[in-house]
Amino acid sequence: MASDDIKSLSPVELRRLIREGKYTDNTSGLAPGYTQANLVILPKDLAYDFLLFTQRNPKPCPVLEVSDVGSKKLTEMATDVDIARDFPKYRIYKKGVLTDEVTDVDDVWRDDLVSFIIGCSFSFESEMIAAGIEVRNITEGVNVPMYDTNIPLKSAGQFHGNMVVSMRPIPEDQVIEAVKVTNSMPKVHGAPIQIGNPEHIGITALAHPDYGDAVTIKDGEVPVFWPCGVTPQNVIMQTKPDFVITHSPGHMLVTDVKNTALKYL
Amino acid sequence: MASDDIKSLSPVELRRLIREGKYTDNTSGLAPGYTQANLVILPKDLAYDFLLFTQRNPKPCPVLEVSDVGSKKLTEMATDVDIARDFPKYRIYKKGVLTDEVTDVDDVWRDDLVSFIIGCSFSFESEMIAAGIEVRNITEGVNVPMYDTNIPLKSAGQFHGNMVVSMRPIPEDQVIEAVKVTNSMPKVHGAPIQIGNPEHIGITALAHPDYGDAVTIKDGEVPVFWPCGVTPQNVIMQTKPDFVITHSPGHMLVTDVKNTALKYL
Repeated sequence: MASDDIKSLSPVELRRLIREGKYTDNTSGLAPGYTQANLVILPKDLAYDFLLFTQRNPKPCPVLEVSDVGSKKLTEMATDVDIARDFPKYRIYKKGVLTDEVTDVDDVWRDDLVSFIIGCSFSFESEMIAAGIEVRNITEGVNVPMYDTNIPLKSAGQFHGNMVVSMRPIPEDQVIEAVKVTNSMPKVHGAPIQIGNPEHIGITALAHPDYGDAVTIKDGEVPVFWPCGVTPQNVIMQTKPDFVITHSPGHMLVTDVKNTALKYL
Repeated sequence: MASDDIKSLSPVELRRLIREGKYTDNTSGLAPGYTQANLVILPKDLAYDFLLFTQRNPKPCPVLEVSDVGSKKLTEMATDVDIARDFPKYRIYKKGVLTDEVTDVDDVWRDDLVSFIIGCSFSFESEMIAAGIEVRNITEGVNVPMYDTNIPLKSAGQFHGNMVVSMRPIPEDQVIEAVKVTNSMPKVHGAPIQIGNPEHIGITALAHPDYGDAVTIKDGEVPVFWPCGVTPQNVIMQTKPDFVITHSPGHMLVTDVKNTALKYL
C-alpha cells in the first residue's frame, strides 16, 4: 500500500492492517487528529505498585486506560482492539534486558498480564501546530530531545527515580500560548515544568540529549521542558522486573479518540 | 473550646486537637478555604481493584492521595497526619455491616491497610459561593440531597454499580457559571453530569432523595446533578468486604491544601 493510502486510513482500518502484519513501521503522521498511545505490559504482581506510581506522578505518567488482567481488549480508547497485535512493533524485556523486538506478542502472552495505555506528546504537538506554534523536532524530522533531570518522582513500592523531560524550543513571544495549549491537555503530560533554565533541573548540555535527537535552538527561542512518557519506562527498567513488554519507540497504538477529546478529560 | 475559637484554628492545629480526642464533631465550616477529604481504608488485597475502579471512574471517585501499605502517614494533602486518629469519627464495617463508630481506629489498625483520601464536594461548594452562587443545602443547613441513578460505572474486579449524584438547585441564569466553576475542579468531582432532566438519569422523585436531605427548589431554578463521593463507598459496601473503615459522614480530614490549589491539578 502506498504511503498516501496509509495516511487516509481510519484508526480501525489501520489497527486491522497492523493486526494482520501488513504494516510494521512507525505510526508518526498516521490517522491525523487521533490520539496515539504508549504501552507498558506488566505481570499482575507489579500492577498495583505501577498503577499507584502513575497516580502519584500523573504528569509524566498519564494513564489513559488499564486493561483487565489477562485481557487483550480495551473499551475506552478504542474498541476492535487486540493489544497483543495492534502495535506495529513491541519490545520484550527480561530482568531489564531487551531480549526481543517483535510485531506481535501472542507467543509470549500470559493470563497474568496487565496493559497500561499511556498518553503521548504526539497529541499536544498536533494541538501546538494547530495553534500556530512550530514544533522543531517535527520540522527537522527527528525524534524530540529528551533529558534526565534532578526532579525526584514520588515513589510507589519498588518504583522510584527522577523525571525525564522532553524539550521544544519556542519563540519567546509564543511561550505563554504553548503553556496554555498544553496545560489544557493534562492526559498527555499537560503544562511544561520548566521554562528557559535547564540548569535548574539538572540539565547541563542541551546539545547532548540523553534520549532522542538534538534540535536547533534559534536566536530568540526559549527551551521549554515537558514531563515525558519515557519516564515510566525508565523507572520500570531500573527495577529490572522479570518480564515487561512495551511498544517500540514511535510504534504506537492508534486509538479511536480524537486529540481534542483529551482536553480537560 | 468555644465554637468561634475552633473556627480560627489552622488545619494542623485542628488535626492535633482531633488527634487528642478533644474534638469529635463534624468538620463543616472549619478551616475555611482548606480542602476536606473523604476516607476509605481497605485491606491490600482489595486495593488494586479499588484503585483501578477510581482510575476508571474519576468523576465520582477523585482520589487525592493513597497511603503506602500499612502507613498512617500522608505526604501530599497534609503532613503531620495520623490517619488513624485525625478524622473526628470513623465507621467500621465487617462483611458490609456497620459494626462500630469510633473516634480513632488505632485498636483495629492492621499492617495490610491502605488508605484512600478522596475529594469532597465541600471544596467546589465553597468556590460556587465565592462566585456568587447560592448553595441551597448550606443555606438551609441540611445535608445535600443525593440520588441513585441509572448511570452505569465502569467495573474493576469485584467493584461495580451505578453512579450516585448530588443535586443543587441553581437559578437558570447561573447554571453556566456553576458548570464553569465546578468544571475547573476535576479533583473534587468536576462538572455536572445532568442539568434539568432528572428522569433522564433514572431519578423520579426529587423530594425523596436516597441519601441526605431534600432541599427547596424555587421557581426559575434548575436541578443540577454532580457525581457524588457516596458512589465509591456505596460500591464497596455492595461487595460486602470482610473489613472496611470509612470516615463518618461530615467528619472529614481537614487538609493543608487550599481549595483553590485543586483547580486543574
